[in-house]
Amino acid sequence: METVSINRSHAGTQGVYSHASSATGTDMTFAVYVPDHEEGAKLPVLWYLSGLTCTHANVMEKGEYRRAASELGLIIVAPDTSPRGEAVPDDEAYDMGQGAGFYLDATEQPWSRHFRMRTYIEQELPELIASEFPVDMNRQGIFGHSMGGHGALTIALRNPDRFKSVSAFSPVVAPLQCPWGEKALGGYLGNDRSAWREYDTCALIEDGARVTDILVDQGTSDQFLEEQLKPQLLAEACEKAGIPLTLNMREGYDHSYYFISTFMADHLRWHAERL
Amino acid sequence: METVSINRSHAGTQGVYSHASSATGTDMTFAVYVPDHEEGAKLPVLWYLSGLTCTHANVMEKGEYRRAASELGLIIVAPDTSPRGEAVPDDEAYDMGQGAGFYLDATEQPWSRHFRMRTYIEQELPELIASEFPVDMNRQGIFGHSMGGHGALTIALRNPDRFKSVSAFSPVVAPLQCPWGEKALGGYLGNDRSAWREYDTCALIEDGARVTDILVDQGTSDQFLEEQLKPQLLAEACEKAGIPLTLNMREGYDHSYYFISTFMADHLRWHAERL
Repeated sequence: METVSINRSHAGTQGVYSHASSATGTDMTFAVYVPDHEEGAKLPVLWYLSGLTCTHANVMEKGEYRRAASELGLIIVAPDTSPRGEAVPDDEAYDMGQGAGFYLDATEQPWSRHFRMRTYIEQELPELIASEFPVDMNRQGIFGHSMGGHGALTIALRNPDRFKSVSAFSPVVAPLQCPWGEKALGGYLGNDRSAWREYDTCALIEDGARVTDILVDQGTSDQFLEEQLKPQLLAEACEKAGIPLTLNMREGYDHSYYFISTFMADHLRWHAERL
Repeated sequence: METVSINRSHAGTQGVYSHASSATGTDMTFAVYVPDHEEGAKLPVLWYLSGLTCTHANVMEKGEYRRAASELGLIIVAPDTSPRGEAVPDDEAYDMGQGAGFYLDATEQPWSRHFRMRTYIEQELPELIASEFPVDMNRQGIFGHSMGGHGALTIALRNPDRFKSVSAFSPVVAPLQCPWGEKALGGYLGNDRSAWREYDTCALIEDGARVTDILVDQGTSDQFLEEQLKPQLLAEACEKAGIPLTLNMREGYDHSYYFISTFMADHLRWHAERL
């Protein structure tokens, strides 16, 4: 692991690191914020997964999480959203390929060699974080935005023993039922839609996966709300399954970090209470 | 004035606007954050001047000012740091020309036609802000970072009736005594150093200019601290002049927005108490 940068901020350390990933076959960059703490202490860790087109840097620069993370004593890890580089396949559109890994392990060509973000987030990066940072891996939470909200929810549902808390901003909750999902899951996983279900929050819940509870914040002026995000599908799935869902519809807010930063501290407190 | 973008954030509105400036002879872009308020109310306004290389966007994206501004009911205006465009002269270095206006009215060629940021900030933009936003122009404060800290301090000292409060992050306090200042003031104003004094905080104070008090935050790990910033010169000038200076040296912090964002809310409270 190499240190790309270190900046002191909000009584803690914002770092950016890179490492050679065996999961993706590329160098991967990620950000970790570590609040000041007593020597030898292990802090709970909160994973933030970003949305389409983002790197680790978007939330690091615009997410406004450090003040609350410092007050609450939470380590924040922000991975990239896909492998990147000249040797990595890409798509001309913003919603497929580099910057759009959808937190899955691709099975189709040309994606399957590098696009293994599920393995990266579920296995490889946690091992590195556990070895290099003062984290208590028995206290992990996960959240994310849009495609990253999809990632957070599906990873939490598939790994209920690992994560004690999960939340999302404007998540993609049903890739099986929206254009982003149709394109990405079809491209990465092929036409057998039964293989998509482990990457669909609503389908996972229908199929029996459970978490303790879920917090979602969603802007009512989000340009992707009706066609792509469809939070009512999550509300229906949670109601049927008996999963307590706190769904906050935020009047006039959009899909941007101006929205996310507004409710960031609320989400950190949600997680801190459960970690 | 044209609206470039509007985003709801922290119970307020973050806007970006552009207009044709007569002062600079170019289109100028600026950001204004307006907290929600009662209809007809007029809010105090706080001007933030940015540093070298920055536009309005740096503090808007990374400054983390909206939560505190919303709580305190402050309008925040963030102008650009210079005229820009193909017709505008530039310098290959980052510390002169576009992105480096130094908040002065240039008198030398080729700069004097467009580089009139003093007139722009002191006269033109306030008139526009007063006419287009719900501001109480009797309650104005000003602050900034680095070159923008220089701008805030010099503008406040020259206009003590306009500004009720002034503060700065890692300001350039004595352009007469640092390489950035030597280059920029020499380039924009020519070799007569007596003409530089109205653009030098320490010289203005020596020459009798006064403000009620000053807040400065400065990181001890700032790469520009010793060669360019020299806060001890401000401390000496303020002590001689009897101006109360709160100079916070912040251990381990650098020159970046990771530092600024950490102490942003403190500065907003400083201004709110005086407005």
